[in-house]
Amino acid sequence: MELLKQKILDCGRALNDHVLLVDSFLNHQVDVKLMREVGREFARLFADADIDRVVTIESSGITPAAMTALEMDLPMVIMKKSVSSILNEGILQTDVFSFTKNAPYLLTLKSEFIHPGDRVLLIDDFLANGEACFGAARLLRQAGAQLAGIGIVIAKAFQPGLKKLRSAGYRVEVLAPVSRMDEGHIEFGDVK
Amino acid sequence: MELLKQKILDCGRALNDHVLLVDSFLNHQVDVKLMREVGREFARLFADADIDRVVTIESSGITPAAMTALEMDLPMVIMKKSVSSILNEGILQTDVFSFTKNAPYLLTLKSEFIHPGDRVLLIDDFLANGEACFGAARLLRQAGAQLAGIGIVIAKAFQPGLKKLRSAGYRVEVLAPVSRMDEGHIEFGDVK
Repeated sequence: MELLKQKILDCGRALNDHVLLVDSFLNHQVDVKLMREVGREFARLFADADIDRVVTIESSGITPAAMTALEMDLPMVIMKKSVSSILNEGILQTDVFSFTKNAPYLLTLKSEFIHPGDRVLLIDDFLANGEACFGAARLLRQAGAQLAGIGIVIAKAFQPGLKKLRSAGYRVEVLAPVSRMDEGHIEFGDVK
Repeated sequence: MELLKQKILDCGRALNDHVLLVDSFLNHQVDVKLMREVGREFARLFADADIDRVVTIESSGITPAAMTALEMDLPMVIMKKSVSSILNEGILQTDVFSFTKNAPYLLTLKSEFIHPGDRVLLIDDFLANGEACFGAARLLRQAGAQLAGIGIVIAKAFQPGLKKLRSAGYRVEVLAPVSRMDEGHIEFGDVK
C-alpha cells in the first residue's frame, strides 16, 4: 500500500535493525484517515474470503480493525490481554509471550463472541515474531472457528513471524512489509 | 442518543446496581456501525468547541474516539496504561486508580503528541468514578493543553464521576447516562 509506505518513510523512524518507531501515526498518535484507507485496503484484499467476523488484539490493532470491520459491515471482536474482574464465565484463554515487553500475557476471549464455523479475519498493527497471531489462532480453534485470513499493517518481514505463519498455512496480507532496516534506513519487500 | 439507549436496553445487562455488562457491542465485541454513529454524535455535540485533537485512554475508548476523530478530521492520541519498553523519552505520567481492577496504573503520554495550547476532546467508553478523566486532565495540564470537552458513551450517572467532573468545570456530554440500575433493570437520566 503506497500511501502507507510513504507515511512510514516520512514519519517512521528506524532506531536500529529491530525497532521501528511509528507512534506518530499508528500506535500512540493515530492518523485515523490513513487507518480508514488501511481498512478499505484490507476489505478489498479479503473480499473473496467469505469473512464472518473481524478480530484484533488490544490495543494498537483496534483502530485498523475497526475501520476494516466498518468497511466490511461486520462486527469486531477485541481479544483482551488480561482478565477483567467482571469477565469470568465462558472465557477461552491462552498464554502468549510478548517479545516487545519481554513478558507473557494471557490472551482472553469470551466464547460467545466467536461462533463455531465462523471464518475470522485477524487484523493487527504489527507482526514480528508472530506469537500474538499464533495465540489468536489457538483461541479461535478452541472456539471452533477458522482463522481465514490475517491482515497486518506493518510486518518486520526479516523476523520469523511472517514466514512461520505462511508455513503453517495461514493467508497473511501485509500492507507494508519491511525487508530491511537500520538506523535512519527502511526498505520494503515481502517474503513468500 | 436514542439508538444507543435502545441498544443498551436490547443487548446490555445490569448484573446488579453497579455492574452494567455491555461487552456484546461496546468493549469486547464492538458494533462498529453504532460506534460510527457515536462518533458522528460527538462531532455534532462538540462542533462549537474548537477542538484540535481527540484523546482517549486505551483500550475500550479507542473505537468511539477513532470514529469521532474521523468525523472531525482530527488526529487521535491514545493515552497508554503502561510504559512500552521502546517508549522512554519525553513522556508525561500520572497515577490513576482503577476501581474496576482495584489497582493503580500509570497513565502515560508522549509529550510530543499534545502541543501547548491544544484544545483537547477526551472520549471514553465508560464513566463511573471519573478517576481516568481526572488523570487525563492532569497529563494534559502538564503538556500545557486544555481539556475543552469530555465525551462519554455510557455514564453511571449515580456514581460520583460525572458530578465531580462538572463541579470541576469540565464540559461533559454523555450519550447514555444511566440514572438507576439493578439486576435486569436500567433507567436513563442525566445529572446536572
